[in-house]
Amino acid sequence: MNSLDAFFDPQSVAVIGVSRNPNKVGSIIFRYLTESGLRLYPINPNLDEFMGYKAYPNVKDVPDNIDLAIIAVPAKAVPDVLKDCVEKGIRGVVIISAGFGETGEEGKKLEEKLKETIKGTKTRVIGPNCLGIYVPKKKLDAIFTLRERSPRPPAGDFVYISQSGAAGVAFMDYASHYGVGVSAFVSIGNKMDVSEVELLEYFGEHKDTKAIALYLESIKNGRKFLEVAKEVSKKKPIVVLKGGRTVRGATAAALHTGSLAGSDAVIDGAFKQAGIIRAYDEEEIIDFARVLAYQKPMLGPNVAVVTSGGGYGVIATDYIESPYGDKGVGLKMADLTKETKEKLREVLVPYASVNNPIDLTADVTDEQYDKALEIVNKDPNVDGILCLALFQTPFVTEKLIDIVEKWSKNGEKPMVVVSIGGTYTQEMIKEMEKRRIAVYPSIWRGVKALRVLYERGLYLKRMGVL
Amino acid sequence: MNSLDAFFDPQSVAVIGVSRNPNKVGSIIFRYLTESGLRLYPINPNLDEFMGYKAYPNVKDVPDNIDLAIIAVPAKAVPDVLKDCVEKGIRGVVIISAGFGETGEEGKKLEEKLKETIKGTKTRVIGPNCLGIYVPKKKLDAIFTLRERSPRPPAGDFVYISQSGAAGVAFMDYASHYGVGVSAFVSIGNKMDVSEVELLEYFGEHKDTKAIALYLESIKNGRKFLEVAKEVSKKKPIVVLKGGRTVRGATAAALHTGSLAGSDAVIDGAFKQAGIIRAYDEEEIIDFARVLAYQKPMLGPNVAVVTSGGGYGVIATDYIESPYGDKGVGLKMADLTKETKEKLREVLVPYASVNNPIDLTADVTDEQYDKALEIVNKDPNVDGILCLALFQTPFVTEKLIDIVEKWSKNGEKPMVVVSIGGTYTQEMIKEMEKRRIAVYPSIWRGVKALRVLYERGLYLKRMGVL
Repeated sequence: MNSLDAFFDPQSVAVIGVSRNPNKVGSIIFRYLTESGLRLYPINPNLDEFMGYKAYPNVKDVPDNIDLAIIAVPAKAVPDVLKDCVEKGIRGVVIISAGFGETGEEGKKLEEKLKETIKGTKTRVIGPNCLGIYVPKKKLDAIFTLRERSPRPPAGDFVYISQSGAAGVAFMDYASHYGVGVSAFVSIGNKMDVSEVELLEYFGEHKDTKAIALYLESIKNGRKFLEVAKEVSKKKPIVVLKGGRTVRGATAAALHTGSLAGSDAVIDGAFKQAGIIRAYDEEEIIDFARVLAYQKPMLGPNVAVVTSGGGYGVIATDYIESPYGDKGVGLKMADLTKETKEKLREVLVPYASVNNPIDLTADVTDEQYDKALEIVNKDPNVDGILCLALFQTPFVTEKLIDIVEKWSKNGEKPMVVVSIGGTYTQEMIKEMEKRRIAVYPSIWRGVKALRVLYERGLYLKRMGVL
Repeated sequence: MNSLDAFFDPQSVAVIGVSRNPNKVGSIIFRYLTESGLRLYPINPNLDEFMGYKAYPNVKDVPDNIDLAIIAVPAKAVPDVLKDCVEKGIRGVVIISAGFGETGEEGKKLEEKLKETIKGTKTRVIGPNCLGIYVPKKKLDAIFTLRERSPRPPAGDFVYISQSGAAGVAFMDYASHYGVGVSAFVSIGNKMDVSEVELLEYFGEHKDTKAIALYLESIKNGRKFLEVAKEVSKKKPIVVLKGGRTVRGATAAALHTGSLAGSDAVIDGAFKQAGIIRAYDEEEIIDFARVLAYQKPMLGPNVAVVTSGGGYGVIATDYIESPYGDKGVGLKMADLTKETKEKLREVLVPYASVNNPIDLTADVTDEQYDKALEIVNKDPNVDGILCLALFQTPFVTEKLIDIVEKWSKNGEKPMVVVSIGGTYTQEMIKEMEKRRIAVYPSIWRGVKALRVLYERGLYLKRMGVL
């Protein structure tokens, strides 16, 4: 058993710090865990029973193996409770409690004590000062924020690992709203023991995880992290958002997390070497993780744009053809073959443009989208497709989603979809997200996603994987 | 009477081409116009009455002055109908009909004929090949797309002028979903007569319009446009999205609109000279127009960031401090005065950071946001404020919107708000939009909005207006 399986695939869980008050952290987590069907043990010396489960005063009293313990007691009580977990032989412990390294000298000492407690044992710790962990496929919801305020995302294809609690909550909230799924969510807090390195290794092998997103404010052991990332990224894409790339940003990060951020130029080069895709904000990290989880890499820079709005085709073209970073992504508009153009001419209306961008015009039908995507998928000059699926055009129906899904999943070329609009379009976007189509609500975000697929392809080719 | 008042402030309107079929373009427009309370005249030689209004065979038969005519008849019938409008002395004519310059040689000839028809007369034409015009405050909805598919935005503070029909529809759809209001929406189509230049002049004087957004694919008379823009932009901010800035993009634009786009470097320099804020995509044009309509210019580059999420403060700092264009906007994090820091220290929790970014922490209350915004508004080292209002934090309530509104409207410094999250946050964002708060759902979009306020300030200072 991999030591981290205790966290993400446990059979039995103890929650230390359940309380008669249902709004206390331990009680909230226990309540959500009851949905998991796992063997559960509420721990509280003053209770005989909790939510219909037999309660125990101490984990050591539980007459069963415990894989995972969630600790939600005041900071000062944590060292003793953790010692109990070690003695019980529990492999996974999530310490939700705050009041450690993040609060100053006294807290740091307390955190040192925790490190001493697990040293040389089989017990591993996530936290302290974290939100918890969440594995939707297993219905393992050990997150302490109330679902009413902080809804959980559905099951999906990438893991999201967050050093920042606030950003973690906002991520889940955002993801659940847009129906973006995760294989797991891990809040690593002060990362006194389990760090981004081991999580990277673990999710590199995790079968439900196709891409790994890390929101880090500091990197503990840079060299090791990059070594591991280099290996993992040969198999799975890794996206990292690391704050503190400017002097002022790094200072702010140091004040916020108490840990020093590294020089940005060094980090940038090292990330590239290790095949890490870099995200610069809270939106990019999700946008990039999604496209990497849903789509194959681009093997070259040549993009075919299929659109029903001519003007939007122009904007996309400008972004694709402009140098990377300078209002553009440094890709190329594919030169479609003569054959492609002829075939397109046959199936499209006479006033459609069969040059790239391919403008299907506002009179486009679902079938014309279908045909156009079929034809560009066969063009040897095309490395990737940007499909502008606009639902305002009069003859397009919801069937366009089936078409886009078909080519997104079975087409030869990687594809990114952009749908721009209001309430109806938002519904269409959610449906596409459900089907794991890499869809974006703006041209810029869609084009950047293609750039990421291209960078992924470059790395895999450089590594000899592709 | 300004010649364009006939379009945007008419007293009487004729719709030429109403039909027994309620789904025909003329019928749709007439139906929507009945809400306006204006004097309406349906024109159709085969009808005596339409929707309870007396119908006339020809505009010339109407026993009343007509300010505005909407033409929705087949292209070939347009020249005669337009001639009738001229003879009737109608000042404003919107030609919805397509099938002119955009379709090839024959269409071009037909369009020339229209130009001849109005030459030397008082009749002005918007279109042909356009969606129509919309002035929400006057309930003047002369847009032919069905509201079910293409909902209309509410009344608001900026005008949106679009050369692209598809982009226009998508804009209205997007704006209505997010509650973004417009003073008017104008689809200019082939702009055979009234062009961006005159609309710029007109809306420069239009009292309900605080900012002007133009989505252009070509600029007809560049020199004149820039001359006018230079004058107008001293009074009101202008945002222009012009596709075709790369060679491939310009080619695509030429194929799409039939009009040649100018060299981009030249356009970029000229725009700056004329005080035009440049947008690069469909999202930026709205984001920029909103902030310019809702907020005052920034008088210097120094930003104070007020946040409850430390990590998000770091991301914002990185974007603010990075050079413009290179994953940043080239502004500065303000060095808060000693006094500011001391005052902040008094009102915030001990573990809050009073350095910039000001991290109120997840324990923040509405009152602390209020106090912090009050204090930074008084700091002479601060030119603008980025307020990260995160609704996931447990002690923050909907009252935060009132607070943010107060400082957004009455504070000394311009302010941009960022709120990141899911369903609940989206509701809060819509409420803020309703109150004309410059709010954005991502850090990057918020920071770019500040950059725009800074550019606006630079221009006004250069022009001696500020």
